[in-house]
Order: sequence, then C-alpha cells, then structure tokens
Amino acid sequence: VDARVDRLQRLCAANRGVIALGGGLPAAEEFPVLGQAVPGALQYDWPEGRERLRAFVAARLRARGARVEAGEVIITAGAQQAIAIAAERVRRWCTGVGRCIGVDEESYPAALDRFRSLGLSPCAAPAPVHYLMPAIANPRGAGIPPARRRALVESGATVIEDDAYAELRFDGATASPLVAGARDRLWHVGTFSKTLCPGLRVGWLVPPPSEHASALELKRELDLMSNGIGQALLERFLDEHDWDARLVRLRALYAGRAGRMMEALRRHLPAWRFAEPAGGFSLWLEAPDPDGDDVALLACAVAHGVSFDPGRLFRAGEAPRPLALRLCFSAEPPERLEEGVRRLSAAWDAFARRPATLAP
Amino acid sequence: VDARVDRLQRLCAANRGVIALGGGLPAAEEFPVLGQAVPGALQYDWPEGRERLRAFVAARLRARGARVEAGEVIITAGAQQAIAIAAERVRRWCTGVGRCIGVDEESYPAALDRFRSLGLSPCAAPAPVHYLMPAIANPRGAGIPPARRRALVESGATVIEDDAYAELRFDGATASPLVAGARDRLWHVGTFSKTLCPGLRVGWLVPPPSEHASALELKRELDLMSNGIGQALLERFLDEHDWDARLVRLRALYAGRAGRMMEALRRHLPAWRFAEPAGGFSLWLEAPDPDGDDVALLACAVAHGVSFDPGRLFRAGEAPRPLALRLCFSAEPPERLEEGVRRLSAAWDAFARRPATLAP
Repeated sequence: VDARVDRLQRLCAANRGVIALGGGLPAAEEFPVLGQAVPGALQYDWPEGRERLRAFVAARLRARGARVEAGEVIITAGAQQAIAIAAERVRRWCTGVGRCIGVDEESYPAALDRFRSLGLSPCAAPAPVHYLMPAIANPRGAGIPPARRRALVESGATVIEDDAYAELRFDGATASPLVAGARDRLWHVGTFSKTLCPGLRVGWLVPPPSEHASALELKRELDLMSNGIGQALLERFLDEHDWDARLVRLRALYAGRAGRMMEALRRHLPAWRFAEPAGGFSLWLEAPDPDGDDVALLACAVAHGVSFDPGRLFRAGEAPRPLALRLCFSAEPPERLEEGVRRLSAAWDAFARRPATLAP
Repeated sequence: VDARVDRLQRLCAANRGVIALGGGLPAAEEFPVLGQAVPGALQYDWPEGRERLRAFVAARLRARGARVEAGEVIITAGAQQAIAIAAERVRRWCTGVGRCIGVDEESYPAALDRFRSLGLSPCAAPAPVHYLMPAIANPRGAGIPPARRRALVESGATVIEDDAYAELRFDGATASPLVAGARDRLWHVGTFSKTLCPGLRVGWLVPPPSEHASALELKRELDLMSNGIGQALLERFLDEHDWDARLVRLRALYAGRAGRMMEALRRHLPAWRFAEPAGGFSLWLEAPDPDGDDVALLACAVAHGVSFDPGRLFRAGEAPRPLALRLCFSAEPPERLEEGVRRLSAAWDAFARRPATLAP
C-alpha cells in the first residue's frame, strides 16, 4: 500500500466525522448479534491487529527484558503465520549453494516445510539465517545453553526466534528472549496457542524495526488481518483472568504429565533413551536399535491403539534413521499416558520381532 | 506432510480408543469456558476446516451448477488467503518476459499486491493465468459478458475466480460460477466477509482436483488451519438463520444505497462518469479531466470530511491517470452517502481551482 494512502486512511478511520466512501466495508448494522458483545471485532480491521492485545504482548516482553512497544507487534494467525512471514522476508538472505537456513538437529516440522516450499534447505549447520526455539525447543523440550545464546546474538546472523513454549518452562524461569539482546536482525515469534488454546489462531510477530513495514504489508497480503473475534475474546479473557496464575497451573499440569510419561518409559521401554524435558509438550525418544522405519512403527503402534510423531518429520534432511520419535505428554490424562506407553512397548516388541521380509 | 503419516494421523483422530502421544495438542480441559459452547472449536483442527461448513459451501456451489463436494473445499482466512494460496501455486505457470498474470483494467488491490510480491506483473491482457471476479467485479460492480466467460473457459488458461460478491447481485440472479464449466484449471475463491462479516475471517478455496493436496499443504504451511471459533460460530449462524432471506435483505439494502449514491453523484458531480453497478459495494467514478493526482485529491477530500479509494490502487500498472476513484456505498447510511458526495464535490471544486504550483 502507498504510504501516503495508508496514512490518510488511518487518519479517516480515527475521525468519525469523515464520511467513508472508501474502504469497501460491509454494513456493520447487518452483522450477527454476537457483534454487539465485542465491538469492532466483526468488521475489517488493520493488519497489525487489536491495540490492547499488542500492548499486552509488548508488556510481557518488556517484563522479560526486551524493549518492545505495542506498535512493533503484529498479531498473526498463530506462530505458524509469523514464521511464514519471517521466512518469506528473510529468504533473500539465504544465499549460497542449496540456500541453507540453519535449524537444530530436530526442529518444528511445519516451519521446516514452509522453508522448503520457499526454496530453502533446512540445514543443521551455521548459516546466514537461523530458525530456532531458544527457550524450549520442539521436540526435545530443552532450552539452548547460554554460550550458544551469546554466540548466536554476536554472530550477526539473522535469527527467527520461535518462543512458542517459553512460558511453559516447568521451573517457571522464563528466560530473557533473544529479542532482548538483538533487535536489528531478530524476528521474534510467539503464540497463545500453547498457553490458552489454538482455535483462536492468535500469535504474534515482532520483526526487526527496519522490516516492520514490509512484514505488515506481507501480513496484509496473506489474509488482510487476523480474525477479530478471536482477538476480542482473548482481550476479554486477559482482562478477566490472572495470566500468571494460569501459567503456574499449566506448568504444574504439564510437568506432572511429563513425570508420569518418563516413569512409564523407564518401566516399559527401559532400553530407549530420552532427555528429561525442561518444559513444553513433548520429549524425544531414541530407539535402542537405530534401524527400522519410524512410519512403519507408527502403523504398528496405531494397530496397538497408540500414536506418536515419527522422528523423520523433525529432521532437516527428513532422515528416517536413527529411529526416533516425538512423544507428547500434553493432551492425554496421566492414566492414558501410562497406558499409551505400555501399548507402545507392546507395539515395539511386535515390530522388532516381525520377520524382516515384512518390512516395508 | 508425508501422505502415509497424514493417513495414520487421520485414522487415529477418528478413533478415541487410540491414545494420542503424537500431535502436540494442548490439554483441552484447560481451555477457556467458551470452549464448552463450541465443541472442538478451540483445539487444533485439520487445515481444510470444519466439515459442516465445507458441506454448506459445496451445497451452495452445487445449487449454482458446479459439481463440488465438501471434500474439495478448503476453508481459508477469508478470500484474501484463498487468493494468496492460488497465486503461490499458479505462479509457476506465469512464464515469459515480465511474468504476466492477466487481470481486468481495474481489479482488487490486495490481490494485485500479492501477485507483485510473488514476482508477477499484473497485466490487463491475455496471459496463461487470469485473476478476475466474473460475477461482480471490484471496483466497477459489473459482471463479465457471456462471450468473455465462454472465451475464458475455452481458452485453456488457468483462472482464479474470485466470487466474493457473487451473492450480492442486486437482481438476485446469482450467475453460474466459472467453476461450473471448468474444474481442471479453475481456482474458485469465495468468502463470508461480504455476506456475513469480515471479522470471522472465513472464506474458501476450491482448487483444481489435481492441485487439492498441494493447496491444502500450502494452507497448512501458512497458518496450520483457519480459526475454529469463527468457523463454529458461522456453522451455528447458518443453522439458526435463513441464509437466502438474509441475502434478499442485503441486496435490497445495498441496492438502495447504490441508488442513493448515484442520485447524489448526478446532482453534485454531474460532469463525472460512472456505470451503474449491478451489485457489490462500490462504483468506479471517472473525473471529467483526466489529469490530477488521485492521492492529492484524497488528501483534499479528507480535509473536506470525506474519504474514497484512489483509482491507482486498482490498476495493474498503478497508473495515477486518468483520474478516477472507487466510491463505496456499503458502509455509510443513506443520509451520510448524500452528504459525502456533497463534500466530495466541494473538495473537487477546491482541488480543481487551486493554483497549479501547489500540485504535488
């Protein structure tokens, strides 16, 4: 959008005295009744999203040491859209053979898929652009060590910081985000999907200041704006509830489930390896035998009444081996976690014992 | 996503007996109370969207002569996201110097902007890929003639059919969509933004059958899924209201406003030209004098208490002349439409009379 036109449009919108013959808005008096409960939530809105929600996000980031103002926050359709916007913008910096984008050995599959669609190759190696989850990584549930934090910030690389699970560290020690230490090449991504619910599709992006206008324009091109009803309901929820008390409760809930799953793993799959997660929704489980097809094991597990996420989905190169899988403790109650691991163990026994000729 | 994994995941989701240690879903019992009123709407869902909503869209299209099943519909974040998905997928067919994508002389600005960001040049000329609004075009409010419909369908071109205003033809003669005559190169786009409200961000895309899987994967990469709360509220609204009766009321409302605006234009700006819109939210107004900067005129109009959309935003080449503008009759009550046109006339008098040296 022409910057002059944008300025004039915003001027008009702020002044009810200006008669709006531009904009193409539908007649608000014909909106469903629901609209009366959440003013403005059903009409077209600006691409950056609702003001109070952006102020909340910025205040939470400032409390963690980052100098971020509400005007720098763009509300997105979840963390996924924030990653998609950042990736499309930083794509031009991914140069060289293969157009690598740096990622952890295992990383978030839908980010990897978006990178690939944009013509980039996720690589577990240093690169001019890095995507990572420094506070709590998916799938391992661990944060990055302080030395790596420092090295990343000082390397001059462009970084997409996916902070989706940062507030769900079991010890409650919400680390300072990378965006607190670097602004000019740091794309900060967050979401309410893990801490409230995914169905509202409300996340956020804090681009580097020099990229704010382009990122906002891209957000507009992708879907004009994030849904107003989810944003308005979220604003009301934040008004009426104690967010920190909620986080304390969620951390205890997920820590308890993680504990129950680890106990069950030690009992039923003692030869498999995993590191204790420090937060988040999942752990990374490695088989005692590196061979075996993770997707074939999934088919066998489903026949035994349990599902998991095959390890290859999380790998930069989509390697099916060494055999590993992501187990989530987030969505099932403790007794089903225990039973799920028992079923997984039975599936593994059947899978490991089957004749090699049946392998796909 | 690996097709085998996707199949297994869907199998598991349909069977509550399978313990889900995959998926990374948050604990649904911690969702806000709201969630109890709209089952499933707050959790992660499939990228294609909710089943009943897709069935509604498919049934409406079938009633207009298109053979579309619910399984072929992808729910999107408004028509804008549907256009963005289609554009990213058809981009590879836009070959040749300048990578043209065919559009009308004037077209929808946010679509043009997305095409440009993808490295394409919108051109008002024949091209291997066309974007258009055949039923009611934005900004002119007219449909395309039958001969052009036939020619387009028979040309073998890939077509993005944006049907956003199709149900808001004033005469209620909802034309058969292009998707009824061609499926294999036709990307059909629709939305509830004009007929219900934009804030839910619910639209849809019907890709060619051969492109369905890729389009769905791209939807997933862009935001995982459309917001569940908006979809669920919309499903409930459709259950509880007579959609056709609503459309009859909306057509009368917008036709009445269009009439009022045209009367005012004939009275206050008799030298300007426009064609009577057949539907939609706007008309296209051309100045008696082709010279003059449309954005400068907007600034002058805002100072006189009225806004409009500068004509250049709608043009493939962003040409500022001949001087024209989009006027919307959709969002203001009739007496403000009349007053708005009066103010626009006063602004035009001031603008046309001002010393040439002040022109930007």
